[in-house]
Formats: sequence, structure tokens, C-alpha cells
Amino acid sequence: MNPASDSPQALYLDDLHIGQRFNSAQHEMEAGRMKAFAAEFDPQPFHIDEAAAERTIFRGLAGSGWHTAAATMRLLITGGLPIGGGTIGLSAEMAWPNPTRAGDTLRVESEILDIVPSRSKPDRAVVTVRCITLNQKGDKVQVMTTKVMVFRRPNPTP
Amino acid sequence: MNPASDSPQALYLDDLHIGQRFNSAQHEMEAGRMKAFAAEFDPQPFHIDEAAAERTIFRGLAGSGWHTAAATMRLLITGGLPIGGGTIGLSAEMAWPNPTRAGDTLRVESEILDIVPSRSKPDRAVVTVRCITLNQKGDKVQVMTTKVMVFRRPNPTP
Repeated sequence: MNPASDSPQALYLDDLHIGQRFNSAQHEMEAGRMKAFAAEFDPQPFHIDEAAAERTIFRGLAGSGWHTAAATMRLLITGGLPIGGGTIGLSAEMAWPNPTRAGDTLRVESEILDIVPSRSKPDRAVVTVRCITLNQKGDKVQVMTTKVMVFRRPNPTP
Repeated sequence: MNPASDSPQALYLDDLHIGQRFNSAQHEMEAGRMKAFAAEFDPQPFHIDEAAAERTIFRGLAGSGWHTAAATMRLLITGGLPIGGGTIGLSAEMAWPNPTRAGDTLRVESEILDIVPSRSKPDRAVVTVRCITLNQKGDKVQVMTTKVMVFRRPNPTP
């Protein structure tokens, strides 16, 4: 598979400015996949069993926050914010204000908050991006501020 | 599956104090699983194709940071830090100082940094935990500081 980061729409440092906004496509959270992800990585009753989940603070099946994070990454990589040469995440701060539910359709709104060029390596910068993951009702299911390394557009090969 | 959070070793607010440390079991990062996770959630050449990865900044296949995060959660839930009633993450700050590599064996060292009882709900507190994920060489592959909701031990049913 060729990710969008290799496509003509790929974004390089030259293409970015503070305040710039991006919107992703959509991704559906399917109940079976939510439970399988949780069974592998986050095996807790409120993530893997509908009946047990009803008796918890979530009052129903809730997706693992790490599944929300992974689905958000997919939405960013595949077009929501396709960084040229690849998205190399250095750090992230994240919160999950609401759980994801089976059948939710997620999308990501991103905004460039800061761009700090490297002092020692002029071909790159650390770009701070806020990525808000929303469900189909507009509820925030994840708010992430992440720092990624972004390179200048490579010179065309002569 | 019964997670460790339902077992007698489950930890409640009454069991925790600032400075307390915990060690997880181990989890192996298997090349096929790393590539499958990335194909689904983080489809970038350095995560899914060994040959292409050699030509990137990683100089070889590197696990997705979100796979590292998910594997860390598994290690915490299944015994590294089994919170009674379940681990409900409110937020997390994370960094990935080194990539994970195929065949790496990960483990998590955790330390309780802070405990802030709820003012309105005396049965719970927000607990800040630092979780450092290490490979078999002792390199840090993830450093996470997370806030989780922890409840007091329920009274035994009469």
C-alpha cells in the first residue's frame, strides 16, 4: 500500500504554516474490531463484553482509548494530515473526554499550532499539531497535541 | 478472559501511595504482528516493509508508536499495574525516545507520582503514574505519564 505520504498531496515543511487546518476522511468503529483490539491490548470488561460493560461506569461497550488513538493515526496518515516522507511522532499529549461506541464514525480535525525549525539541521522542524477526533455527533472522543518531525521538500533528482 | 483487575491482586486506592513502584511481565514484539498492526493503523513504509525501512531515518523496521502504546497497556492491565475495577485512563503524555524492533521484549516499570482525591466523590481519586516501557537492552521505547481514575476498595457484600 502506498500511504498518502508518498502521494502528490504529501505535505512538506514548505507547505505548512501556523493556524493551518486539515480535515480527515471518516473511519467507522465496528463492534467486532473494537472487542478484538481490546482482547489483544486492553482486556477489560467494559471494552470486550456488552453485558458486563452495562454494569460499569461506561454503561455500555466503550472502545479502548488506544484503539481511538490508533484509528486517529490511520485517519491522519491516509489523508487527514499526510506528512511527506512519513509521520514521525516524537511525543503526544492526549485526553479522551468521551468513549467511542460501536458504530461511531470518527473523523479528525487538525490545526498547526507551532513550527520550530531545527537549529542544527536546516532541512527539518518540529511541528506541533492539535488533532481533535470527533464522532458523528460532534462529541470529542480524543484531543491530542503532538509533536512531529517534518522535513523540507526534497530537491528533485536531476 | 478475566483481567488481573478482577483478581485478588487488584489494586484499589487504599493500596496505593506516592513513590510506589511496579514491574510488569514481558511482551515480545513479533515482526508479523508489528507489520499487521501498522498496515491497519499506521501504514508507513518504515513500519510495514523491511527493505523500504532500511532507506528511512529508522534504518530498519520500526514498530508504530501506537503499537508500543497498546502493548504497554496490555502489560499494565495483565499484571503490571492491575487497577481494581478496571483502568480508566483520563489523559496521557507520551514520548517515544527509541523505536521498537522486531524481536524486542518489552516490559514496563511504573511509579505512582501523585494521588489527588476527588473533592465531590470520596470513593475515588485521580492517580498520576509514570510508566516507562523498556526493551531487553534497557533502552526506553516509551515514556508515559498518565492520569487514571482509581476507586476505593468496595465494601464486601454482606
